[in-house]
Amino acid sequence: MIATQKNRHAALRERLIDAAERIITVNGLAGLRARDLAREVGCSVGTIYNVFEHLDELILGVGSRTLAMLDTALGAVRLARPYGSMEDAAEDLVRLALAYLEFAAEHTVRWRALFEHRMSEARALPQWFVDQQHALFAQVERPLVTLVPELDPDARRTVARTLFSAVHGIVALGLEEKLISLPFGDLRDQLAATVRAITAGRDELRSIDSAGRGADVPQC
Amino acid sequence: MIATQKNRHAALRERLIDAAERIITVNGLAGLRARDLAREVGCSVGTIYNVFEHLDELILGVGSRTLAMLDTALGAVRLARPYGSMEDAAEDLVRLALAYLEFAAEHTVRWRALFEHRMSEARALPQWFVDQQHALFAQVERPLVTLVPELDPDARRTVARTLFSAVHGIVALGLEEKLISLPFGDLRDQLAATVRAITAGRDELRSIDSAGRGADVPQC
Repeated sequence: MIATQKNRHAALRERLIDAAERIITVNGLAGLRARDLAREVGCSVGTIYNVFEHLDELILGVGSRTLAMLDTALGAVRLARPYGSMEDAAEDLVRLALAYLEFAAEHTVRWRALFEHRMSEARALPQWFVDQQHALFAQVERPLVTLVPELDPDARRTVARTLFSAVHGIVALGLEEKLISLPFGDLRDQLAATVRAITAGRDELRSIDSAGRGADVPQC
Repeated sequence: MIATQKNRHAALRERLIDAAERIITVNGLAGLRARDLAREVGCSVGTIYNVFEHLDELILGVGSRTLAMLDTALGAVRLARPYGSMEDAAEDLVRLALAYLEFAAEHTVRWRALFEHRMSEARALPQWFVDQQHALFAQVERPLVTLVPELDPDARRTVARTLFSAVHGIVALGLEEKLISLPFGDLRDQLAATVRAITAGRDELRSIDSAGRGADVPQC
């Protein structure tokens, strides 16, 4: 391709992701149809598949923007200076969890779409998207260096992802009216108390080895 | 209605829930259509809406069976005898969490449908379904009586739901290939270590009052 064609291609990509982003942030993932996208951007449905290999790639383009926003939101609440104490590191984890809750509450539709999307036809997630997730988990790993210094880097990453998942569960079910209906302030307090309990009981996380494997788990 | 009519009505309800259950456990919630249900049961679409007020009610009928199965699965792993020690109560929570993971791994499609379903037109969940959820949380509340005896019953229920949500998050993201891909045994170990950390740090849960409100949560 000559340069102008390349630029046109890149510009169309951006416009399609912009359009998909508008649809997803208002109507969620279920509202996204190639036909509507094509109409909004003023191209044919076929053109979309010239620019993106499949619709999953386009949805990941929007997901990537959501991850970037979340990364910025979490980065903004973290202590900028090095931790002076164990308590600093523990409170940083609490702050990250609360910032995650605020983000999910503010951008609920977009955030939900990030988790509802599954690759079709059992395609693997592309490496660039996995790398972007890792960068996000790295924010959680930093306080863990101080809190659980015994963990090697692989184990620390695994524990960071597990903590993120626990926080995600409290936030996700808390924001549904289905299983939990707590006033928002109380949800914040519950989340903070749980993260504090985990950090207070952090000795239990020391048993995790680099494969994420702990000792002495009872068999069901 | 005369008795025979009532019986026929109840029998048709059961057959429709049976059919919906077969569809949901194979194809998930997205696979459920009134037309297919009517064909499978051999009635008209209109008849479905004679028997159920709306499709949500039918889906909750299947959800209720899932909750009952889960309740049985969790009940089966709990210590039958009274706790002899704090460690007994803590290990019971670990066992419940692992049983939840096993259940989700074994009945993934059915279990996912329970959480994916949202009432349409902002209908509230019926009280009987909420009560059935409460009965499930009661299994988590029992160890908390020993672990955090200071909590009043309302606060204990709130904490039980928060713990359930944290466990749910680890299980849900752990069973997705999206954000975490750990071998199943490692996921078990991560889950057990996290629940143990929470129980070891349980002093932090003591601050929760009956409204679910804790002290000293930083503002973002």
